[in-house]
Amino acid sequence: MRLLLLNPNMTEAVTERLATVARAIAAPSTEILPVTAPRGFPYISSRAEAQVAGALVLEMLAERAGTFDAAIVAAFGDPGLFPARELFDFPVVGMSEAAMLTACMLGRRFSIVTFSLNLEPWYRECVIANGLEGRLASIRCAGGAFASIADVQHEKEAALVELCRLAIEQDGADVIILAGAPLAGLAARIRDKVAVPLVDQITAATRQAETLVVLDPLPPRAGSFRRPPAKPSVGLAPALAARFDHTD
Amino acid sequence: MRLLLLNPNMTEAVTERLATVARAIAAPSTEILPVTAPRGFPYISSRAEAQVAGALVLEMLAERAGTFDAAIVAAFGDPGLFPARELFDFPVVGMSEAAMLTACMLGRRFSIVTFSLNLEPWYRECVIANGLEGRLASIRCAGGAFASIADVQHEKEAALVELCRLAIEQDGADVIILAGAPLAGLAARIRDKVAVPLVDQITAATRQAETLVVLDPLPPRAGSFRRPPAKPSVGLAPALAARFDHTD
Amino acid sequence: MRLLLLNPNMTEAVTERLATVARAIAAPSTEILPVTAPRGFPYISSRAEAQVAGALVLEMLAERAGTFDAAIVAAFGDPGLFPARELFDFPVVGMSEAAMLTACMLGRRFSIVTFSLNLEPWYRECVIANGLEGRLASIRCAGGAFASIADVQHEKEAALVELCRLAIEQDGADVIILAGAPLAGLAARIRDKVAVPLVDQITAATRQAETLVVLDPLPPRAGSFRRPPAKPSVGLAPALAARFDHTD
Amino acid sequence: MRLLLLNPNMTEAVTERLATVARAIAAPSTEILPVTAPRGFPYISSRAEAQVAGALVLEMLAERAGTFDAAIVAAFGDPGLFPARELFDFPVVGMSEAAMLTACMLGRRFSIVTFSLNLEPWYRECVIANGLEGRLASIRCAGGAFASIADVQHEKEAALVELCRLAIEQDGADVIILAGAPLAGLAARIRDKVAVPLVDQITAATRQAETLVVLDPLPPRAGSFRRPPAKPSVGLAPALAARFDHTD
Amino acid sequence: MRLLLLNPNMTEAVTERLATVARAIAAPSTEILPVTAPRGFPYISSRAEAQVAGALVLEMLAERAGTFDAAIVAAFGDPGLFPARELFDFPVVGMSEAAMLTACMLGRRFSIVTFSLNLEPWYRECVIANGLEGRLASIRCAGGAFASIADVQHEKEAALVELCRLAIEQDGADVIILAGAPLAGLAARIRDKVAVPLVDQITAATRQAETLVVLDPLPPRAGSFRRPPAKPSVGLAPALAARFDHTD
Amino acid sequence: MRLLLLNPNMTEAVTERLATVARAIAAPSTEILPVTAPRGFPYISSRAEAQVAGALVLEMLAERAGTFDAAIVAAFGDPGLFPARELFDFPVVGMSEAAMLTACMLGRRFSIVTFSLNLEPWYRECVIANGLEGRLASIRCAGGAFASIADVQHEKEAALVELCRLAIEQDGADVIILAGAPLAGLAARIRDKVAVPLVDQITAATRQAETLVVLDPLPPRAGSFRRPPAKPSVGLAPALAARFDHTD
Repeated sequence: MRLLLLNPNMTEAVTERLATVARAIAAPSTEILPVTAPRGFPYISSRAEAQVAGALVLEMLAERAGTFDAAIVAAFGDPGLFPARELFDFPVVGMSEAAMLTACMLGRRFSIVTFSLNLEPWYRECVIANGLEGRLASIRCAGGAFASIADVQHEKEAALVELCRLAIEQDGADVIILAGAPLAGLAARIRDKVAVPLVDQITAATRQAETLVVLDPLPPRAGSFRRPPAKPSVGLAPALAARFDHTD
Repeated sequence: MRLLLLNPNMTEAVTERLATVARAIAAPSTEILPVTAPRGFPYISSRAEAQVAGALVLEMLAERAGTFDAAIVAAFGDPGLFPARELFDFPVVGMSEAAMLTACMLGRRFSIVTFSLNLEPWYRECVIANGLEGRLASIRCAGGAFASIADVQHEKEAALVELCRLAIEQDGADVIILAGAPLAGLAARIRDKVAVPLVDQITAATRQAETLVVLDPLPPRAGSFRRPPAKPSVGLAPALAARFDHTD
Repeated sequence: MRLLLLNPNMTEAVTERLATVARAIAAPSTEILPVTAPRGFPYISSRAEAQVAGALVLEMLAERAGTFDAAIVAAFGDPGLFPARELFDFPVVGMSEAAMLTACMLGRRFSIVTFSLNLEPWYRECVIANGLEGRLASIRCAGGAFASIADVQHEKEAALVELCRLAIEQDGADVIILAGAPLAGLAARIRDKVAVPLVDQITAATRQAETLVVLDPLPPRAGSFRRPPAKPSVGLAPALAARFDHTD
Repeated sequence: MRLLLLNPNMTEAVTERLATVARAIAAPSTEILPVTAPRGFPYISSRAEAQVAGALVLEMLAERAGTFDAAIVAAFGDPGLFPARELFDFPVVGMSEAAMLTACMLGRRFSIVTFSLNLEPWYRECVIANGLEGRLASIRCAGGAFASIADVQHEKEAALVELCRLAIEQDGADVIILAGAPLAGLAARIRDKVAVPLVDQITAATRQAETLVVLDPLPPRAGSFRRPPAKPSVGLAPALAARFDHTD
Repeated sequence: MRLLLLNPNMTEAVTERLATVARAIAAPSTEILPVTAPRGFPYISSRAEAQVAGALVLEMLAERAGTFDAAIVAAFGDPGLFPARELFDFPVVGMSEAAMLTACMLGRRFSIVTFSLNLEPWYRECVIANGLEGRLASIRCAGGAFASIADVQHEKEAALVELCRLAIEQDGADVIILAGAPLAGLAARIRDKVAVPLVDQITAATRQAETLVVLDPLPPRAGSFRRPPAKPSVGLAPALAARFDHTD
Repeated sequence: MRLLLLNPNMTEAVTERLATVARAIAAPSTEILPVTAPRGFPYISSRAEAQVAGALVLEMLAERAGTFDAAIVAAFGDPGLFPARELFDFPVVGMSEAAMLTACMLGRRFSIVTFSLNLEPWYRECVIANGLEGRLASIRCAGGAFASIADVQHEKEAALVELCRLAIEQDGADVIILAGAPLAGLAARIRDKVAVPLVDQITAATRQAETLVVLDPLPPRAGSFRRPPAKPSVGLAPALAARFDHTD
């Protein structure tokens, strides 16, 4: 099968890091198709940035529809996920959604550990939007600036390990999600230093995208994710406009 | 004071209807500045349309910032509201947010009555995003097509009155919100036919926007709605890009 | 319009403080009618005191019904609010209700900061009764005694500012309510010292009472706040008895 | 031990009915001391009536303090319960509280079946105030008027049995509470006609009051139910004023 | 009446301690029938141990059915409680269930204080299973090993008193449950040292079991606790198999 | 990898049905090792049966530990799942857990459709135990008896399709889980007749078990699922006893 690995951020190095991890664990017959946002932000870390990036996700999906079997929205916080699931017929998974649901099978309560204080409120709203606040132990964020988004996982490694320890000892975490696309692959490197299981977000998302393809669901003709009725639009990218007005 | 009445939809007739109601109840010293989306959709009725329109809301606000004291996002479902509140220093209120919070002062549980089945899931997620599901009695939607979005409130008036009756008798509503911008002003016309108080959404939103201006809050320098750090972007409208990279 | 500003406490100085703030922000055409409880307690700070004061609120409203357009129950904790809303035809708002709902438009989570440890449990139950616990960041109370209820806002100013800082940094508050009638007006004085927006409770309540009058709802003939059927009583103040037995 | 059975309503016949059931199931060494409200309403069925009656409960308890070991507030809805628990040193139980907590030991979800439509909202708020909404299957109320509050349990017996059936078959009730003081004793009469266990409210309340006496708790010197600090008052019944200002 | 006091653990000394407390507070006419698990574990302190012990509880109840009026599952965590309630016609109460519901009548929020860190997750799931998380202030567990399960209440007395203090001052507990069968009777000994009421679990359970017998409910013929249809089995103890296949 | 497919029921035909579906969708390199309970019940459909079967699950896992990489508890309701996850070092997934978490990626709210009324309460408690009640639209159960547990999916096919329709139209389901091991494989057969995606439970469980192996988590050394301390036992199967006392 073919999986679109859509990075809504513009940082190619992060896309490559995600693709490397995804390819390492995908089934032999799965092809990973990475794509990086051509516009927007180098890295999304606020509600406002996610609003803009989410619209771009829809455009990017519309332009590539038909060339893959399922798509991964590869930014923690899942910009555009529910809208995409509503608008398109192929399965779409979000990286935070996949990580959280997978974590639920490894413990009662998960903590989310990430590398920037700015991310906490957006991530918390993401947990609530998924109805999983009863499974959340805590969100812990490293403070301070970082030199490079592409290398932040090395730069902050010690701080992140310490946050994991605090999440376990003070917050009661049974399992920890290392959150934020730039942390892809970190779980494998620090697993011996953390006393509970770690969930690597792109590993989880790749597996869950494959799972949805295996389930082979028919596109919904009812329910709240059925395709919206045809609607004209002005000013949208042609492929996205066509998806909205049913001329695709 | 000056209030920007921002209709994220492209239908001018709806903007006019909203502005008429807003002007009728605003304080004498309040100036209503209506603006209609120049791009996007004639009417928003799905998560996917709201994702696109929400990004446009940010752009429209950035382009007009400095010309008003507070803004109203005048589409039920509040596309772009939380991102706008985070990104800008002026107060912003959403029409559904304002209607729901106002309804809480008129009863224990409110119902939302609207004119299209497509709106139910998006509106429900909006209630959850506001943490008000414990105050929700029901969402009831009229079925069937309609001829004109500008006149749907007349076309479906009888059906909407009947839905109000069902919300009261079967769902336990103490108060009812007539939801969706095209229903602006309907409350005044059918109030005698409904046995509980009705909340007109643009009346509520206009009043709440004025209230936030009266409170005169300083822009937050902490908390989850402080302005995000400066960030470069590619491909955004210039005014919006300037707001994101702090060159505005 | 005429707004009854009903202080369920006996301290005139607090009533005056409330009235001063209310008049400063009310519409030019709004008349503020302050009234102080002739019986009861100098200041309400427990569930038991609220039970007694709430009954007195009903009596005071019955005696003045017909002389105002809406009423404000001007004690944080809202003694007698829901019963009053049920019993009378005019709009009634509570000062804590109004402050909390208004705060919801300035952030995701609010903290309540107040001047006495005794108030915490009663205020917490008030948040729960409003179904807003999902929006609450924390309740923080200054410890220690105070010399005068009328001047406690000056006496404890430094301590309250420090509690605001803790609410922001440790509890994640986006917005803060300075709670308790004796703190009316404090928000304006300390706003520069607190990094998130402050909600002044009587400002919020005055605006929300005006808003309900503008909405001009018909008294409910159904739902849980319709007027109770006529019922005889013994030993009540005549005006209140008349309201209960429908001879008013 | 001596249990004060406090009926906050003025209907002696209901008090007698309650006392008869209580005496039949109380321990041989338990003395039931019934008392009927000398003022207020013949029967409480609204929030407003409960506000007034709850204040009277405090007064009646203050006047009788020292003559009993524990008190039962014998009106469903528990007017004045939490305030009384805070103000006095002896244990106090509410009839609805006791019935709901007891029902939790007979099933996963309970329904409340009562004899008047007016009671539903007040009872629902009572469930929420006890944090038991997750255990509630439904509240079902008989419609229509009734001739006598003292005999309503006979008058509406068939309708109540039918509501029990609906609660079981449509709402998933595992156990049913027959609610409202006038229904005391009905459970024993209709138990063969209802397919799940019934909880008689005054049986539950009497047993739970005895249990609290057996537990012999010290009055709290901390926590939210410790006695409020001494406070002067004006216009209260002398015994109640003395309890508030610590001169009792 | 006759109450089966079923200790699902194998430690006779704990059973004796439980029986001593139960007999001291039971009605004169109540006979306490203690029984200790003949197999299983000396003390249950994990989900896995509870799974095994819960099955044994069913077997022990089946073997003794007909010789008692109600049963107490006398291990905190209530192994096998809901299954037993479903399978048998006599009332069954769990020691943690009884303690929590009783605590609800002594305060708004209870804390659970116990003697081993291992117990926290299982106890937390027990609170959730009872739908009482809204009433929980905290669970606090003493760290460190202990010499003897039979004497742990003496060994850890000082630590447990200190945990009670923390629960009150930091967690807002109104009432405290001393949890775990080995702590039976401790409440009476330390009550003067703790500033809020204490609930002794076996006192609560004994009283609640008596209460259910007094209520005299008919076995449910509907609802989720009606007896399951007859079903054959292989390998079960004969009495339990007979209960499942309706040949008992 | 090797996956133990553990059927806690005694019906071999159901095990075979489950294994057939699992093998059809498992990765080529995955070996499915089916095992059927040698004792217990032909089919589990009550809390009491699940209590007994859950203990048997622990025993079966202990006896086979070391011969597989992950285990599937292949009965809806997941008997013994959390205890097993705590006791053993290999990943374990439950069939209902896996189905529900997978369904969350195909819609906002899922319904559970099953073939017997008896299953509803146990399944509902399973949803609550997973903290997913906010994602549940409804549980719908076919009434009436059935001839053979092995063929019930054919016997009740029309009724189940109709329940799916009702779940969509009346309950707002976005996605449906066909629940109960005997329905394995039904989803593929009726997918064209149901207007929303269907989740086949053993497909979901097989994929999720594979995913946990791919994640390769270290066994937790902290958190609530770390292995319990060594404990002696009496009367357990030798392999299970050895797991509990750490002599395995």
